[in-house]
Amino acid sequence: MSRYFSDKYATLKAYVPGEQPRNQKYIKLNTNENPYPPHPAVAKAAEEAAKSLQLYSDTESTSLRAALTKRLNVSMDELIITNGSDEVLNFAFMAFCDKHTPAVFADITYGFYPVFAQIDQVPYREIPLQDDLTIRIQDYFQAAGTIFIANPNAPTAIALKREEIVQILEQNPYNVVVVDEAYVDFGAESCVPLIREYDNLLVTQTFSKSRSMAGARLGIGIANPELIRDLKTVQFSTNPYNIDSVTMAAGTACVENDEYNMENCRRIIETREWARQKFEELGFEVTPSRTNFLFARHPEISGEDLYLKLKEQGILIRHFSVERIRDYNRITIGTREDMETVIEKISRILKA
Amino acid sequence: MSRYFSDKYATLKAYVPGEQPRNQKYIKLNTNENPYPPHPAVAKAAEEAAKSLQLYSDTESTSLRAALTKRLNVSMDELIITNGSDEVLNFAFMAFCDKHTPAVFADITYGFYPVFAQIDQVPYREIPLQDDLTIRIQDYFQAAGTIFIANPNAPTAIALKREEIVQILEQNPYNVVVVDEAYVDFGAESCVPLIREYDNLLVTQTFSKSRSMAGARLGIGIANPELIRDLKTVQFSTNPYNIDSVTMAAGTACVENDEYNMENCRRIIETREWARQKFEELGFEVTPSRTNFLFARHPEISGEDLYLKLKEQGILIRHFSVERIRDYNRITIGTREDMETVIEKISRILKA
Repeated sequence: MSRYFSDKYATLKAYVPGEQPRNQKYIKLNTNENPYPPHPAVAKAAEEAAKSLQLYSDTESTSLRAALTKRLNVSMDELIITNGSDEVLNFAFMAFCDKHTPAVFADITYGFYPVFAQIDQVPYREIPLQDDLTIRIQDYFQAAGTIFIANPNAPTAIALKREEIVQILEQNPYNVVVVDEAYVDFGAESCVPLIREYDNLLVTQTFSKSRSMAGARLGIGIANPELIRDLKTVQFSTNPYNIDSVTMAAGTACVENDEYNMENCRRIIETREWARQKFEELGFEVTPSRTNFLFARHPEISGEDLYLKLKEQGILIRHFSVERIRDYNRITIGTREDMETVIEKISRILKA
Repeated sequence: MSRYFSDKYATLKAYVPGEQPRNQKYIKLNTNENPYPPHPAVAKAAEEAAKSLQLYSDTESTSLRAALTKRLNVSMDELIITNGSDEVLNFAFMAFCDKHTPAVFADITYGFYPVFAQIDQVPYREIPLQDDLTIRIQDYFQAAGTIFIANPNAPTAIALKREEIVQILEQNPYNVVVVDEAYVDFGAESCVPLIREYDNLLVTQTFSKSRSMAGARLGIGIANPELIRDLKTVQFSTNPYNIDSVTMAAGTACVENDEYNMENCRRIIETREWARQKFEELGFEVTPSRTNFLFARHPEISGEDLYLKLKEQGILIRHFSVERIRDYNRITIGTREDMETVIEKISRILKA
């Protein structure tokens, strides 16, 4: 840190993304990327848009919001588009938390939440998951803060039912409840249909997982128009042109071909269920996943050990050194072939 | 504002970008866009990169930084890439300002500076330009805060000499001095060669003007490695993947063809000098521009009046309602043909 860095960030710990090695070829099952490339229309749209990059992008993200209204069955003013869902989450920490309104989230959840709280200088409170790594919804009733729930949760892969989120919303009429649906398209129930009933609900989604566009950085906030307007005030106070026009065009083409994406999700779910069974046959304890990854531990090998041994053999999975989940690993669902390879390697590691 | 919006932003006024009308065809001379499209290699690179968007982008922006090291004659660790130069400016407000260290900038300068100060909740002090709209460098000596200087300044178009910035740097050894060089390629002296001599200097640049990529949102921070590391801590605490992989590839191709960009700059400067003379012949008072725009007022027509009349005739220029400069208009340098049209229209308006 330089001698000029503000003291307010003296204890700030930045987020550590999963490894993205550029030097060696790995089977990458560590950052929950989609194994399938985006629809071919995406690259064509990107090329076309890049030809007039000399003009500023549309600060209103009109084409992309219009495409999404049909898919999500919401109206234009119920949508905000951001540079990844990280950005809309950060905007929510900025807009809806302050020294009187802490952020409230699980102790085991998306690791960026405490980082946002620190960079935005708002207090936060962590609520422990139960021993089985599930959320006890009663712990979130009258929560005295802005609630952030990843649903399905990461890295546990476990989802709450929509009806359970409803109870949390009902019990927090004076607080915003943010439901982070990064993984929702892999089998969980979305809360988007609730936004007109609950003016304290913000749902966030991403193009990074089910839509094969992790490299594009596209996030969505879905809420009633008043919450969206607050988020746009923050957006227009930091970076009104935060979505570039190539990404906008690519994202629009992606949504216009959403059947392709949903078909990929179905294939990933199928591979996941097959892989889950194989992992269980190998003696793993696997949480019930509604995501594009498995969260698993084995009685005979530590999480770190398995991670390191697979890395040696050219396969990356994600290990977290956090106390409560250090026995586990998070394994992204790749292609069926990727999963056959990883299962075979693990099988040999366990036998050795 | 919703009932959930934090009180801390009760008085926040978001930035208002220049109009970007989508419904009607205008000659757009209001947001300082480059009239020339990017090099054809840019669209090709975008298309190619879009084909593997399912993978996350490189959080280190390796290819783009590598290309820039050659152009800027700096090393990899002296560079940070951001989502537009707005983002690196915002990071600087976050990292180098706090309640003990206000932001300090001119009263007439880039309108986003006070917005950044507000969203980041740091105090700021505005130093009036002199009557001729120039900066008096002595006003920035021992400034008791983090200094932000747009050089050339916007919307005045006037540049300080590098030697003058050196004096400001010398007189502020305990503060960071941010030199915002959005327009530097149109004839001003860059401070990039000073970064090794002054560890308190941060230079910011953008792809939006001289590189014909306003729609791409690419900004650069150039400073000694310690300041860059501070900015990266902020970046990795908000959005580590803030540059998408298509933009990264497009930007790299753009820099690899920088001769094309610099040739466009030469054409724009030539058109500017021609247009400036025409404006003066029409009775305008024009500031000495080192940018891709003119800042001009006329004794016989108000700035707003001229703006409105030109808009009626299909030409957009930028008018600011700020008291000190309400007589002026900011007119982007378009193609020679664009400028001939606007000069002809203005000539008729003045005669009417």
